Amino acid sequence: MVHKIIKLAVTDVRFPTSLEQHGSDAMHRDPDYSAAYVVISTDVGLRGYGLTFTVGRGTEIVVCAVEALAGLVVGKSLEEIISDFRGFYRLLTSDGQMRWIGPEKGVIHLATAAVLNAVWDLWARAEGKVGCGDPKQIVSCIDFRYITDALTEQEALVYITCVGCLFCPPEDQMLKEGYPAYTTSCAWMGYSDQQLKQLCTDALNNGWTKFKMKVGADLEDDIRRCRLIRQMIGPDNTLMIDANQRWDVGEAIAWVSRLAEFRPLWIEEPTSPDDILGHAAISKALAPLGIRVATGEQCHNRVMFKQFLQASALQFVQIDSCRLGSVNENLAVLLMAHKFQVPVCPHAGGVGLCELVQHLILFDYICVSADLNNRMCEYVDHLHEHFTSPAVIRNACYMPPKDPGYSSEMLESSVHTHQYPEGDVWKTLLNK
Amino acid sequence: MVHKIIKLAVTDVRFPTSLEQHGSDAMHRDPDYSAAYVVISTDVGLRGYGLTFTVGRGTEIVVCAVEALAGLVVGKSLEEIISDFRGFYRLLTSDGQMRWIGPEKGVIHLATAAVLNAVWDLWARAEGKVGCGDPKQIVSCIDFRYITDALTEQEALVYITCVGCLFCPPEDQMLKEGYPAYTTSCAWMGYSDQQLKQLCTDALNNGWTKFKMKVGADLEDDIRRCRLIRQMIGPDNTLMIDANQRWDVGEAIAWVSRLAEFRPLWIEEPTSPDDILGHAAISKALAPLGIRVATGEQCHNRVMFKQFLQASALQFVQIDSCRLGSVNENLAVLLMAHKFQVPVCPHAGGVGLCELVQHLILFDYICVSADLNNRMCEYVDHLHEHFTSPAVIRNACYMPPKDPGYSSEMLESSVHTHQYPEGDVWKTLLNK
Repeated sequence: MVHKIIKLAVTDVRFPTSLEQHGSDAMHRDPDYSAAYVVISTDVGLRGYGLTFTVGRGTEIVVCAVEALAGLVVGKSLEEIISDFRGFYRLLTSDGQMRWIGPEKGVIHLATAAVLNAVWDLWARAEGKVGCGDPKQIVSCIDFRYITDALTEQEALVYITCVGCLFCPPEDQMLKEGYPAYTTSCAWMGYSDQQLKQLCTDALNNGWTKFKMKVGADLEDDIRRCRLIRQMIGPDNTLMIDANQRWDVGEAIAWVSRLAEFRPLWIEEPTSPDDILGHAAISKALAPLGIRVATGEQCHNRVMFKQFLQASALQFVQIDSCRLGSVNENLAVLLMAHKFQVPVCPHAGGVGLCELVQHLILFDYICVSADLNNRMCEYVDHLHEHFTSPAVIRNACYMPPKDPGYSSEMLESSVHTHQYPEGDVWKTLLNK
Repeated sequence: MVHKIIKLAVTDVRFPTSLEQHGSDAMHRDPDYSAAYVVISTDVGLRGYGLTFTVGRGTEIVVCAVEALAGLVVGKSLEEIISDFRGFYRLLTSDGQMRWIGPEKGVIHLATAAVLNAVWDLWARAEGKVGCGDPKQIVSCIDFRYITDALTEQEALVYITCVGCLFCPPEDQMLKEGYPAYTTSCAWMGYSDQQLKQLCTDALNNGWTKFKMKVGADLEDDIRRCRLIRQMIGPDNTLMIDANQRWDVGEAIAWVSRLAEFRPLWIEEPTSPDDILGHAAISKALAPLGIRVATGEQCHNRVMFKQFLQASALQFVQIDSCRLGSVNENLAVLLMAHKFQVPVCPHAGGVGLCELVQHLILFDYICVSADLNNRMCEYVDHLHEHFTSPAVIRNACYMPPKDPGYSSEMLESSVHTHQYPEGDVWKTLLNK
């Protein structure tokens, strides 16, 4: 059967999370978790759902960019796309006029992710499984432009062990135990100590052993909060800290050194997400303290990740299902990380990121790395109720998704109510 | 007098340059030179004009981003802005919600440039001169976040010699002789050999001695065209070549090595504009052949330029008046380039880029570098007729602009006719 794409619709969906300081950090004090939400429809009635995550204002710009890309998608068939997915990826990312406003970065790349996420969802729904048993098909989705000095197509083929596939029921171990997760839900910047303590207690009761907290606004405050959380979780559980790009290079080294006594596994986003050499300097300075560097949620494409790996600038690769150009570009980064032997620990949370990225990390484990050492996927306990197939956590592990697709479909009622600015939620808030 | 900004208007202005292949290169085959054009109005009737350059489709996305930023500008007074220009720059670039879709890159940063260019124009018109005699005021416009490991505020103060100022009549030598330029108008990718020969002949007759040509689509074709242009311009004139990001790292080295016999001064944009380490590898490999590496027109912010300089990844810094966050961020890059002793050779052409960047390169010469060795500013002979104060070239040099402001005001009639899609030019073309 041929699935011809006849329509692409995009909606600005926002959740007023800033009202309760969910998601607040040193650089994003008042995020309203949002999405540019894409639905593509085919002539035979099948639909694909995709999104990119945003944090409020500016979502309308990404929506505008999705509309600009729509003309490159509508009229194509799914079969035509997947028969040359690399070519289709490049069609979106290298349009002779639109690449000027990127290329492959910022708004236009976030929009590309939303569109391609919908295409992958459509593919997975149409076939039930994707790339199964055929590393060649998986590799044919990757655009190797600008990364062949680090990873060639031939190497990529060798790295995919092909014991599973994308969007396929995974192997027994994962079905039984799930993929290990860590929680960021306990210690947002804007939470009170009381709230933090209660959330840690609850999380410990639910089996969580790995916790991330936000730092970077005030050093004395960080010391106090690190001490508090370390007391709550005890000496054996894992603590990670996240500065969300708050510091310059020298400042990062000095500040994090002061927090070394609390033994964080990693410092995340210590400085500008663009500063590869800065991250390398920070990695080098903090290594003797046993603190490693993690980054990636705002690393804008495979060329940047390539250099982070080449420069030993990170020790944990935090892929993002929406910042990079969908599954296509994430596959490139997973495989480069494998080559450089750096563990992948995806960024998640926001809205929909957990739902999407769980597929990628399962693929990474089953088909590429076969390793759980120092690997875990972020989890944040927000907004899952708006999805038709929400991520499922059991004993602090992601349980493999069972429904067909990329888990990216939102409830129609949720989309309707949270449309910005015309949905009921926003009508009420804006008229206050 | 206080100048309160009461309105910001933005227009999608496009010129159908693709019809005649002006501006065509290996990655942008059919550019329609365009701009998101901003006009800010004050309560006392003074206006400021700014723009960012684009190449057609996607301009509407930048326009949408300018509209999103407008709320941060309207209601402020010019005096309030310049009393803390660093803070205002950061207000635009670090909005707690909008920074997610950048930060400081792609669409949102291009929009920031358009808005801030209009603010600088307003300032220059209001005062006639800007920063005159006061390095402290100039340095107070720079956001040093993320670059203090390469340049501190104290160093910046020392580097500004303060014999002139931004937007001020320059010193005698420049008034008499102008700032040296090179031309890119002779050898766009889509031009025929006949056209190329004629344009070279004309340019030589007009005193041009430095020529840039586009390469990267086909090696044999490049060899033929390089030979042709070298024959036309003779052995003593300067040739530069520009690949517009066409190659991977290894490919760039191999390809450019084949063109070494034509003695290009530089290879411009050999690979991804994000690939700092790639450019460093290319620089190292081509140095023995006497070919240097130039890049910058798509280098998206000061953090990237910092690393290009730190890694010895370029030998010519090609600042862009619209890709970076206006004068503010360009000042940071000029001063870092001075510290690393790398010459600045701005990117220009497009629409309005020559008009704007001439101010920056004059400032660089008069107040920072005091050096013309290996320095020149790009010039392209297109679309100047749409500006109220077009750039003036004499004997292949930019003659200092004399009218007050940032030379960024377009003719009202040009804006009106070229509005996309409702202007007469587009109505006619789209109805064909």
